[in-house]
Amino acid sequence: MSQPSSATKHPLYELLYHPSIPGRGEFIRLAFEAASIPYTDIANASPEGYATVQHLCTNPQNLESGDGNPPVFSPPALRISSGAAGGGSSDGALILSQTPNILWYLGEKLGLAPGDEAGRYHVQQVVLTALDLNNEVHDTHHPVAVMKYYEEQKEEALKKAQDVRENRIPKYLSYFDRVRRHNEQSGGGQGRYLVGGKLTLADNTVWQVLDGLFFAFPKEMEARKKEFPELLGAFYDGVKQEGGLKVYLGSKRRLPYSMGVFRHYPELDRQ
Amino acid sequence: MSQPSSATKHPLYELLYHPSIPGRGEFIRLAFEAASIPYTDIANASPEGYATVQHLCTNPQNLESGDGNPPVFSPPALRISSGAAGGGSSDGALILSQTPNILWYLGEKLGLAPGDEAGRYHVQQVVLTALDLNNEVHDTHHPVAVMKYYEEQKEEALKKAQDVRENRIPKYLSYFDRVRRHNEQSGGGQGRYLVGGKLTLADNTVWQVLDGLFFAFPKEMEARKKEFPELLGAFYDGVKQEGGLKVYLGSKRRLPYSMGVFRHYPELDRQ
Repeated sequence: MSQPSSATKHPLYELLYHPSIPGRGEFIRLAFEAASIPYTDIANASPEGYATVQHLCTNPQNLESGDGNPPVFSPPALRISSGAAGGGSSDGALILSQTPNILWYLGEKLGLAPGDEAGRYHVQQVVLTALDLNNEVHDTHHPVAVMKYYEEQKEEALKKAQDVRENRIPKYLSYFDRVRRHNEQSGGGQGRYLVGGKLTLADNTVWQVLDGLFFAFPKEMEARKKEFPELLGAFYDGVKQEGGLKVYLGSKRRLPYSMGVFRHYPELDRQ
Repeated sequence: MSQPSSATKHPLYELLYHPSIPGRGEFIRLAFEAASIPYTDIANASPEGYATVQHLCTNPQNLESGDGNPPVFSPPALRISSGAAGGGSSDGALILSQTPNILWYLGEKLGLAPGDEAGRYHVQQVVLTALDLNNEVHDTHHPVAVMKYYEEQKEEALKKAQDVRENRIPKYLSYFDRVRRHNEQSGGGQGRYLVGGKLTLADNTVWQVLDGLFFAFPKEMEARKKEFPELLGAFYDGVKQEGGLKVYLGSKRRLPYSMGVFRHYPELDRQ
């Protein structure tokens, strides 16, 4: 799971997430991959990896997540330790949970956030908004019961998906595009970046949600290209070429969408 | 809207949110009130205040939110400026949006976050999880269409509310209680605080969600007291006595729940 670049100055980063799906863990993978910083994706790195994730993160009786850190509500989590020479991480690891919390941490550490205070907060509000859309897309196939099958709530899903496609997606796309244009008009980003003059987690995170939307609602998104030609064109295509992302997106580490947040049910797409 | 204490060292803080409801703005109000730091709740401070909020935050064509800041997706937002002697804030204000983003900013500035890095992130992951529950509670009365009336989605709401009450609320309460117990066992908080040895935004934010749940689902929450006697007893009662909160909660500034996130529809409560 590791990038080939040197890691001498970085701690050992271990992603604790479900195996086999992009899911919310993907936002964290993209951060490491864009910055070409090594990390271990525990559940995908070895057959027994997921048992570690479950032990630390999904046991509903846990009073801690390991190393004296508080319990985790739900994966993803990130374990950060000194990790001597690829070894264990038992001494004083920091374990963080909640996707936006982990991304806030990594933005600074991986150089994917602006150096100024205002810029960092402006990146984070875009990240949070993209993750809100991610949650709304999840609810298109699970509108009334998180733990039940899609097939058990298909009727409600048709209504929810219609609302998300017709009202929520254009509202979010308009916002992301206005952030992009504002940045361009402020002299940064040349229309290619959302905040400042180079790639940040705002770009990464919005990109992943757009990519998932293209998978889940291909007809809807194709139609929206007319309204948002630059966001869904040059911006979307440009992020794929950034930093380590091009290599990553062509690698086996990039997992296909399947039964996670982004699912393609043709009946939920624009008809 | 201002607290009476001195503000000589603080900037001018202006909350940009809808009038008349607690809503997501309440998490931000509670931060200022707990710290006894003055702020202006623009939409509630004057009859014309909401026009300012709408101008800066809800115009779907906005390319900026004012003073060169990027656009806001949705209120609440916070405007921070030097604000000479209670005057305007036209020169170089910082405008932030997204509730958890604003709370992260205020945690440090208002002394409601731990001083150490791990503690700050551990507070924020609890804040984010409480806000996730807040969103799920909103969806109990609006499961399939954000902009339609409850009455138009009542059938779906009955299913969603049942799932949230039976599966989601106990999962979240268990998590908050385990965070509390972990902190107590780590030597901090004496069972009264979630992270560290004094009030943080984790306590404030979880408290507000619990308080809203007691309003929305009184029967459900009464029944849950048996499972979580300390969280829903000493912890919940204790936060109300902290810092400026006791005065605030007895004041007219504390708005009643009505038609916002937390609504009491008896048919959605435990029967």
